[in-house]
Amino acid sequence: MAEELVSVEHCLENLPEQELKEVKRILYGREHPSIEIPDGAVQLAQKYNFEVKGYQITASREELTPPRPVRIGVVQNSIAADTTAPVGVQRTALHNKISRITQAAALCGVNVLCYQEAWTMPFAFCTREKQPWCEFAEDAEYGPTTQLCQELAQKYNMVIVSSILERDSVHGDTLWNTAVVISNKGHVLGKTRKNHIPRVGDFNESTYYMEGDTGHVVFQTQFGRIAVNICYGRHHPQNWMMYGINGAEIVFNPSATVGGLSEPLWAIEARNAAIANSFFACAINRVGTEVFPNEFTSADGKPAHKDFGHFYGSSYVAAPDGSRTPGLSRTQDGLLVTEVDLNLCRQVKDRWGFRMTQRLDLYARSLSAAVMPDYQPPTIRDSC
Amino acid sequence: MAEELVSVEHCLENLPEQELKEVKRILYGREHPSIEIPDGAVQLAQKYNFEVKGYQITASREELTPPRPVRIGVVQNSIAADTTAPVGVQRTALHNKISRITQAAALCGVNVLCYQEAWTMPFAFCTREKQPWCEFAEDAEYGPTTQLCQELAQKYNMVIVSSILERDSVHGDTLWNTAVVISNKGHVLGKTRKNHIPRVGDFNESTYYMEGDTGHVVFQTQFGRIAVNICYGRHHPQNWMMYGINGAEIVFNPSATVGGLSEPLWAIEARNAAIANSFFACAINRVGTEVFPNEFTSADGKPAHKDFGHFYGSSYVAAPDGSRTPGLSRTQDGLLVTEVDLNLCRQVKDRWGFRMTQRLDLYARSLSAAVMPDYQPPTIRDSC
Repeated sequence: MAEELVSVEHCLENLPEQELKEVKRILYGREHPSIEIPDGAVQLAQKYNFEVKGYQITASREELTPPRPVRIGVVQNSIAADTTAPVGVQRTALHNKISRITQAAALCGVNVLCYQEAWTMPFAFCTREKQPWCEFAEDAEYGPTTQLCQELAQKYNMVIVSSILERDSVHGDTLWNTAVVISNKGHVLGKTRKNHIPRVGDFNESTYYMEGDTGHVVFQTQFGRIAVNICYGRHHPQNWMMYGINGAEIVFNPSATVGGLSEPLWAIEARNAAIANSFFACAINRVGTEVFPNEFTSADGKPAHKDFGHFYGSSYVAAPDGSRTPGLSRTQDGLLVTEVDLNLCRQVKDRWGFRMTQRLDLYARSLSAAVMPDYQPPTIRDSC
Repeated sequence: MAEELVSVEHCLENLPEQELKEVKRILYGREHPSIEIPDGAVQLAQKYNFEVKGYQITASREELTPPRPVRIGVVQNSIAADTTAPVGVQRTALHNKISRITQAAALCGVNVLCYQEAWTMPFAFCTREKQPWCEFAEDAEYGPTTQLCQELAQKYNMVIVSSILERDSVHGDTLWNTAVVISNKGHVLGKTRKNHIPRVGDFNESTYYMEGDTGHVVFQTQFGRIAVNICYGRHHPQNWMMYGINGAEIVFNPSATVGGLSEPLWAIEARNAAIANSFFACAINRVGTEVFPNEFTSADGKPAHKDFGHFYGSSYVAAPDGSRTPGLSRTQDGLLVTEVDLNLCRQVKDRWGFRMTQRLDLYARSLSAAVMPDYQPPTIRDSC
């Protein structure tokens, strides 16, 4: 296999300067300045081989409302131990890796940090095997990963969004794909579950857990109103829209997705959501190739194999004005720090007017009609 | 002002070959082969100074269902006479220009052709002046533009989508922003009106016409099921979604939009719609700078002026699998011919499963609740 490209943005730097400027404007919107990464974070990154990038997304100054600056951190990473290692060893290795990156985030002044989907485990849902992978499931409120996040959140005065495989032992030992939101004081604010479950290629998640039952809850934290649209939910604009209607200013999209399947969609979907809903959308993908002990098939006519394909990272933050940060690399662990001014959300609503022109009453009626089993779409037929 | 860039795609051709291939895959999805443009069309294009490009978007062969090839044509163009010329002269000049491009489309074997928004006139809504611009409004069923389109449609055996300023004299002489759909036999199949009206910058359309009342009608033509999402409606994912729910396989987005405002959004929105709804989305923008007789302001604190800014063309077709054609140029009139196999829509639904995982019942309930004036979004508050 050819070596993986680092990133599109990296390649574009070869263009002539004047053209590059215009290409970047058209592809990515207004350019966002870098922010300085403190030495301590740089050293951690060098020592533990992860990338740190930082950008600032500004808003206009207002007379009556002060700026509402928030530093958002998103983390992408590969697994930290072989998938053949004992479950506890695998999880501890990831706990350690993420603790180090979180420390770097704290040094960068991050206020709200989000990890990738199911970050405590390999993305083993390709295998369709229940053991040992279901052992990675944890209690959302009291599990060891939530406890770790509470310690980190309190230590660093940081809201943490932790996406895990949840075991709900109170309700029939059910499994869920869940994000736990922990306040900057270390309290579990609540949880929110993945609303849309894929059935495509290696993403056999529908054999593990069901569609989420937590609706489109928004968390009012000390650093703004946040929501979590987990992975495959990014393909559904109506999902993003409900988080926007419910007041989210930052929506995280912790994901796990591979190049052959989704890469041309990656730069489109979260960004479209940021535009349509006037919020910040944070697309987070894992990195690397995960190889499993037993072979599995991918429902594509090809022979059985043991790896999932390349998780291409490329995590980025999209702004409500249509601009976005460059992405993290396609190949390396990384921390992306983005300082945003949450006033931009309202400012863009005032400018573009997308919220007030949504005509939600029309769609409430249309959808209510469309879900009836005997619904007949309004169609004009050419009878000639 | 610096010279306008021809297109991002044109600039990228300077990258090293191996990198370019990967950059294109990530940015645009799988590559689509060009189709040959017949000599007659090339000659027309040279004589009248418009660009012609052609691509083929294939689908998998199936055993029981034959391919459903359709050639889609989209047209972008500048106005053809000064805005100070008599209204009749301006319109006739555009009728002539479009007739020539339509002839080229016929030579290319186009089955369904769509013109840009309000193609019979300059985009005069920036002026807020009602005269003489309202004179461009026509009866959708019997106006001179519809008559011309009927002649062209019958002559070339081509479905034509004609987006005009409509005067509905039967219902109070109201104005609408309307697309008329004409069958390949030359019959008016019906019309569909712009659902979402902008109030941003120079887009003072809300002072001319109201939100459309035709819902999300789909036209079953001899060349597939088509719908029309006019201009600003592309910012609203729920609008695209309803056309998809109602069965559209091709959705045209005839538009008029300028670089300073929307260009970083342009490549995102129609493409996201194609992905989310498993249909072909055709984004069509006008070209050039339109200068008006009287000065107007743009609600941006800047002095009064007479031009609208640069309409950047860049029309393209997005496929349901996340890929897209290259765009037409940012600077020149053009005809983009795209041969698609409509089977791809269903094939992608089977593969990605976006339609079956939409959970429309959830959103019918959520939206019905959200439109109540006393709606309280579900919010978990940090009480610390």
